[in-house]
Amino acid sequence: MTLLGMDLGGTKLAYALLNEKGKVLLKEHIALGSRGSQDVGELISSSVKTLLGSEKYGAIGSIGIAVPGIYHAGNGRVWAPNIHGWEDYPLLDEVKKVSGETPVVIDSDRACYILGESWQGNAKGCRDVIYMAVGTGIGAGIITDGKVLRGANDIAGAVGWMALKKPYSEAYVPCGCFEHYASGEGIAGTARMVLQEMKTYTGALRDIPSGELNARDVFTAYVDDDPVAKEVIRLCIEFWGMAAANLVSIFNPAKIIFGGGLFGPAASLIPEIRREAAKWAQPISMQQVNFEFSALGNDAGVIGAAFLALKNAGLNPST
Amino acid sequence: MTLLGMDLGGTKLAYALLNEKGKVLLKEHIALGSRGSQDVGELISSSVKTLLGSEKYGAIGSIGIAVPGIYHAGNGRVWAPNIHGWEDYPLLDEVKKVSGETPVVIDSDRACYILGESWQGNAKGCRDVIYMAVGTGIGAGIITDGKVLRGANDIAGAVGWMALKKPYSEAYVPCGCFEHYASGEGIAGTARMVLQEMKTYTGALRDIPSGELNARDVFTAYVDDDPVAKEVIRLCIEFWGMAAANLVSIFNPAKIIFGGGLFGPAASLIPEIRREAAKWAQPISMQQVNFEFSALGNDAGVIGAAFLALKNAGLNPST
Repeated sequence: MTLLGMDLGGTKLAYALLNEKGKVLLKEHIALGSRGSQDVGELISSSVKTLLGSEKYGAIGSIGIAVPGIYHAGNGRVWAPNIHGWEDYPLLDEVKKVSGETPVVIDSDRACYILGESWQGNAKGCRDVIYMAVGTGIGAGIITDGKVLRGANDIAGAVGWMALKKPYSEAYVPCGCFEHYASGEGIAGTARMVLQEMKTYTGALRDIPSGELNARDVFTAYVDDDPVAKEVIRLCIEFWGMAAANLVSIFNPAKIIFGGGLFGPAASLIPEIRREAAKWAQPISMQQVNFEFSALGNDAGVIGAAFLALKNAGLNPST
Repeated sequence: MTLLGMDLGGTKLAYALLNEKGKVLLKEHIALGSRGSQDVGELISSSVKTLLGSEKYGAIGSIGIAVPGIYHAGNGRVWAPNIHGWEDYPLLDEVKKVSGETPVVIDSDRACYILGESWQGNAKGCRDVIYMAVGTGIGAGIITDGKVLRGANDIAGAVGWMALKKPYSEAYVPCGCFEHYASGEGIAGTARMVLQEMKTYTGALRDIPSGELNARDVFTAYVDDDPVAKEVIRLCIEFWGMAAANLVSIFNPAKIIFGGGLFGPAASLIPEIRREAAKWAQPISMQQVNFEFSALGNDAGVIGAAFLALKNAGLNPST
């Protein structure tokens, strides 16, 4: 059986065809461009239709879709803050219009990331493991005793809202304290703050118009020993370490896996993040946990979605 | 069948006999006094033996024991930092020497607290619910999707180690940041800190020798509008609110239940703790969660231990 895994992001739709053993047969992505609401739904549906029509990689037997937000399994609807008009989008119903007999399953991207790592990546064989996804925002896919943590209403894992620095600031309103400082967006904001404080600094980051400064600029400057970038990354390591420490103390996991758009550039910082976390966390749990970089990188979402599809087809791979 | 639930604390052994419906038939406690190590084990064993010998409340069919620390289900051993010499105490083997055919089960006190509330208290019918126990220390019993969260090595729920206030301080080494400020011990320490800062204060707390000042003194003064006590409690509300917010964002629970030796006196503060938490937490999860006071108070441990005993006897009450 061929599996179709799709991973909808804020800027693109990625998809892959995999066999039952997890081998990737095809991998593509389509930029969303200016699409919103119904157009994004139609892009998913038309992609599903086209892929089902081709049998180049074998007949597709099951479909899984990762969405950037909350998936309500009870009614098949999606809340995705970065897709315009998806406050309560009936994605399951829309896809079912074109999927015919082929089963379709949907889940949040953070659930798919950790399921992907469990199936084909660094979380193989772990019954208690967390994927911390640091990109534009911050979220976590959490597996406890072998099952994805969902919460009472499917919103568990919103770790970007973690309270780490008192007193409370109005700046935390849109996205939470941890995300405000240490997400992709947060790094740019923190860099602007540090730039304001370091009046005498005349380095590379000063030349970038404030509105265009982004996390990648900061990492590029960091490699060149830029003092602003070094201060920003030092602050981020503190926040990433505190957040990871809290997950260690609360969950006593076997592993925390760092992934998402920023890890990448930040992967080499994992030993420093661990040193910071070790100051704060329950010491016995800290000794027992491994901190690792995602094995699947940007493919964790499509691979996790394909794993959902495999399970939904009634096949029960042992992970 | 009569159930025996025991709850070992740092200062006393509490026990109760209950029927299968959760009705408490007898409730007692014995102060540990200066007992350490083997003496505490012998106190438990001799109590079990005496209770098994009496049939005044019906024959005891199953025994559950809550311990203040980590229980390793794999080898029946206990790590309990507040019981001298219990770094790796073989409690299950010791109790089995006197329990004969009667089944015995052990778990951590925080697991028992939330199981007690699930069976007979405010967590009835909740599949995602957290008991935050604030006493001498701070820990949480966490149920996700109907099961107690254990972690990879039975240490999950060590929320007293939560990182809430940077930069890191050496004062956090023995017990963690959250517990340092907002446990029973922490309140006394915070009060000493505030007393040092408020040089002009001449109220009731100034008269208590620094080494004797405890959380109960602070609550007594708080009721009398004492300015030091008010500042200490304001700080504690901030920490309790941030910690609760983090649990809300991470777990998306239906309820957080506040219990332990301090709630009690702090129960009336729950609405203020909720207001503080609402600033920080994921806003949709925050709307969905209830904050409540423990229905079982100091009996949560013995009732939860009796529930463990009931399940271990092969009876499966629906909670």
